[in-house]
Amino acid sequence: MQLAEFLPVARGDEPADLVLTNGCVINVFTGETIDADVAVAGDTIVGVGRDYDARVQIDVGGRYVCPGLIDAHVHIESSMVTPPQFAHAVVPRGTTTVVTDPHEIANVAGADGVRYMLAASEGLPLTVCVNLPSCVPATHMGTAGADLTADDLVGLRNHGRVTGLAEFMNVPGAVLGLPGALEKLVAFQGRVIDGHAPGTSGKWLQAYVGAGPGSDHECTTTDEMLEKLRLGMVVFIRESTAARNLRALIPAVTPRNSRRCAFATDDRHPADLLDQGHLDHLMRLAVSEGLDPVTAIRMATLNAAEWFRLRDRGAIAPGKRADLVIFSDLRDFHAEMVFAGGALVAREGVPVGEWPTPTVDDSHVRDTVHVDWDHLSFAIPAAEGNVRVIGVVPDQVVTEHLVEPAHVVDGLAVANPERDLLKLAVIERHVGTGNVGLGFVRGLGLQRGALAGSVGHDAHNLTVAGCDDTSMMTAARAVGELGGGLVAAVGEEVLGAVPLPIAGLMSDQPVETVRRQMDRLVETAKDLGSPLHDPFMALGFLALEVIPALKLTDQGLVDVDTFDFVPLFVQGGSE
Amino acid sequence: MQLAEFLPVARGDEPADLVLTNGCVINVFTGETIDADVAVAGDTIVGVGRDYDARVQIDVGGRYVCPGLIDAHVHIESSMVTPPQFAHAVVPRGTTTVVTDPHEIANVAGADGVRYMLAASEGLPLTVCVNLPSCVPATHMGTAGADLTADDLVGLRNHGRVTGLAEFMNVPGAVLGLPGALEKLVAFQGRVIDGHAPGTSGKWLQAYVGAGPGSDHECTTTDEMLEKLRLGMVVFIRESTAARNLRALIPAVTPRNSRRCAFATDDRHPADLLDQGHLDHLMRLAVSEGLDPVTAIRMATLNAAEWFRLRDRGAIAPGKRADLVIFSDLRDFHAEMVFAGGALVAREGVPVGEWPTPTVDDSHVRDTVHVDWDHLSFAIPAAEGNVRVIGVVPDQVVTEHLVEPAHVVDGLAVANPERDLLKLAVIERHVGTGNVGLGFVRGLGLQRGALAGSVGHDAHNLTVAGCDDTSMMTAARAVGELGGGLVAAVGEEVLGAVPLPIAGLMSDQPVETVRRQMDRLVETAKDLGSPLHDPFMALGFLALEVIPALKLTDQGLVDVDTFDFVPLFVQGGSE
Repeated sequence: MQLAEFLPVARGDEPADLVLTNGCVINVFTGETIDADVAVAGDTIVGVGRDYDARVQIDVGGRYVCPGLIDAHVHIESSMVTPPQFAHAVVPRGTTTVVTDPHEIANVAGADGVRYMLAASEGLPLTVCVNLPSCVPATHMGTAGADLTADDLVGLRNHGRVTGLAEFMNVPGAVLGLPGALEKLVAFQGRVIDGHAPGTSGKWLQAYVGAGPGSDHECTTTDEMLEKLRLGMVVFIRESTAARNLRALIPAVTPRNSRRCAFATDDRHPADLLDQGHLDHLMRLAVSEGLDPVTAIRMATLNAAEWFRLRDRGAIAPGKRADLVIFSDLRDFHAEMVFAGGALVAREGVPVGEWPTPTVDDSHVRDTVHVDWDHLSFAIPAAEGNVRVIGVVPDQVVTEHLVEPAHVVDGLAVANPERDLLKLAVIERHVGTGNVGLGFVRGLGLQRGALAGSVGHDAHNLTVAGCDDTSMMTAARAVGELGGGLVAAVGEEVLGAVPLPIAGLMSDQPVETVRRQMDRLVETAKDLGSPLHDPFMALGFLALEVIPALKLTDQGLVDVDTFDFVPLFVQGGSE
Repeated sequence: MQLAEFLPVARGDEPADLVLTNGCVINVFTGETIDADVAVAGDTIVGVGRDYDARVQIDVGGRYVCPGLIDAHVHIESSMVTPPQFAHAVVPRGTTTVVTDPHEIANVAGADGVRYMLAASEGLPLTVCVNLPSCVPATHMGTAGADLTADDLVGLRNHGRVTGLAEFMNVPGAVLGLPGALEKLVAFQGRVIDGHAPGTSGKWLQAYVGAGPGSDHECTTTDEMLEKLRLGMVVFIRESTAARNLRALIPAVTPRNSRRCAFATDDRHPADLLDQGHLDHLMRLAVSEGLDPVTAIRMATLNAAEWFRLRDRGAIAPGKRADLVIFSDLRDFHAEMVFAGGALVAREGVPVGEWPTPTVDDSHVRDTVHVDWDHLSFAIPAAEGNVRVIGVVPDQVVTEHLVEPAHVVDGLAVANPERDLLKLAVIERHVGTGNVGLGFVRGLGLQRGALAGSVGHDAHNLTVAGCDDTSMMTAARAVGELGGGLVAAVGEEVLGAVPLPIAGLMSDQPVETVRRQMDRLVETAKDLGSPLHDPFMALGFLALEVIPALKLTDQGLVDVDTFDFVPLFVQGGSE
């Protein structure tokens, strides 16, 4: 809003558009709660006090009024829905700003993917800030759909909603000052650079911090968190679907260091978003773990805004954006009304009114599964020795590096469900290299059929695991025909699917629909024998070559501990 | 320092240049004190920990190590010395960064004055950041040497040491959105804008904050401070020579709001700098008033750095500038060693080594007293009625608005020392308008002679007060002959002077010299009858037309309460 329009209302010479009367306002600057009215003109807060004239007056009846919550780090793609649908899921819960890292779509579609996320989130009640993906591809041991160079990132950094550089996962690149990494860090010097340094410590961590990354959302212990806080890192306490760190970290938050802490959801799947919630869930959890509720709100608002230099929000004060949440219980945060930019956009968890749906040209992020089906084969000629097997660890993204006798039939190494030995294939789907990585996996537990998906962190190639090559081919082809998605198949029959036509990562349907589709598909996978509560999530991380111990990319098996390719067949027994 | 040089030392692969061993390091991020060594390469901290190899090792023997202190708001001109001499006075006391507002020199020399301050502070152990003067001239009721427009300010704002816009004193201009004011605020939207809103409250304060200014150093009560903190203003607790607010404000600092507080010295005269100190004095005073010492240090380092977005300093952490202070007693802060950019620059309050003296072309800020002496007259033809008299209030910058019978001799209104009625003249000295404002003052107390000075806030015209026109002329001319300064004279004899050749505001001598000159001159003034402990400071504020109640500019008498000119002669008695 222009100052010339703001000032007469702020002075009290002209009426406000909206006044929330009888609020108990959470003052995040002083940590106080103050009985006051909040006056709004257009999208902006003009004052906090008494005696405002207004065109619309809403009596909030003594309820709390806090600033809209800010998620410091999230991959919207992990919700499996587009930004407008994601907004529908999180805004009614009190989140009005997210800093998203479009790392997943960028691995598929590069800068076009980043531009799609910006365009698809234009004008929503949710302000979607974008921190640019710093490490695409994650490594050169897998084939991604794009290579985002420092120059590409520089070309994107001046967009009004781009806040900086996202989770700088290439810790060795930063610490050793390797050319590609250094170039990106230098290009973003003086801007926000988020870190990503799980377990990094001591002098390496100090070098990493000095190289630029100033935040971290990968802490798992209080010791790790304190070491990072002491170096000046802002710690985002994360509670995602795959990594639930909040309970472990809340004890490290003190009155003296809380100003350096914020919250992040990182990756939350549809069911978690709908059943548990978004930042509101983190608020409740943090308070139940003993965190002072006002401190929790400061962390989820002012602190995140300060780190990301979002000076127009994160507090209830004149000149700030009128993103406001009304709720009744400090110890049980449930948004009853949510205002975004001065407009009531949700009530009792349900969107209010028509929200804008950005018109987006998504042609660059559709039709992203490119496989030469005629030349695809999953055959593994048997060789001497045992085979390496990826061991799934339930509910974790780390895997075990197993060695097992191969099951050989007619000179080929094949799956053997009786020993929970499934065949695994990672099919390059972006640029048509024809690469297919082949191996074996234990722990998915299928007794028949196959699962396939175009979600395969981080390169998001087509990942298939199954009991026989026919089922695998059926499932893989079905993903291709959907233009991306998750599929279960047996023999030549497709049993179920979740279409993900946007980059092979996101549905174009509402989050409730996707959640129902997912529930059904997981049930199907369980019928096929999988004991996991989400076998597709496990499948999606089997190709992530930066997480120990053994992973499979389209280029082959990767021993993450030695950070190198290893052959499938190996002399000797279990390592 | 370049990352390529920083990283090998940070990793521990190459030796540091300097290690301070056995420190008790104040961690401003977490509020902890931590036993550790601090390693430095070049001008940069590379790490905090143990086991660093280094070319130079200094055992600090368990003493505290804190970041160099940051003064959030200071007018260096008020120290009456140039930036290099100011640095000599403050750096040995632990101040390594100041944010200066060259408001005084800008009133004399405009953008040239600002550029002089930047050039004269280049490369010093003291980092001199400049916040640009927002209100030059202060009003149009006095004639300054320059008019700094929004365009002028925009032309200066991209200098590497320019942090933003300084104390936005034009509160009505901001709140009412008046053209000149609005233009400047809009030009600095998104940058640091310091406020200056003494006593402003309620909706006007809210409009002011919404207009852009985000800090304030004019609080005098805890209520005022809390109101400003709640609106998101960062409050600089000020302890200057003329305004000592610290004791009154420290009780308002709480563990929850201290992150929004910093310290400022604003104006400190040579004697105060030398006898009391700089920020070290504020640290001691704050702690003696009950503030937690580590909180005091956080306020004087990290908090100021955060507000001014000085991301390279304000903490001891990898990548930060190696500005470090060693001291022994948390409750009695005295800098024992000071490091600036990794170099030991002071020890036990005394500079160490040769400090660089910037070579500066100061021709634009010398020879700034331009008066047509031949046409100058202090004669006041008598008129009907009484005269208005400015009443000096000891140790304050506010004055009283008195009305007294004139003392008329030969048809002229003249001074009458018996009634403590001195003649006052404000002679425009910048642009040759020939303006002379004439009036009377009570409270300076001279029994004979005259005092004159080229320091006259804010326009810094030549201000003279005296018992007779001859003494006044002698004093004024002597200031002119010095090219600026402070003078005491009787009849045709000059009794003493402090030359201030730089813009008529600053000496080119060391602060100790200026202090001795000032002491002598004040003694002389006392010999002439003045009871004030610093009559030149009182004289220097008599022309400040923005501070109530009655002031005299070169254009005439100003009733500050009505913000308009008033005639010297008035019908009726005291108002």
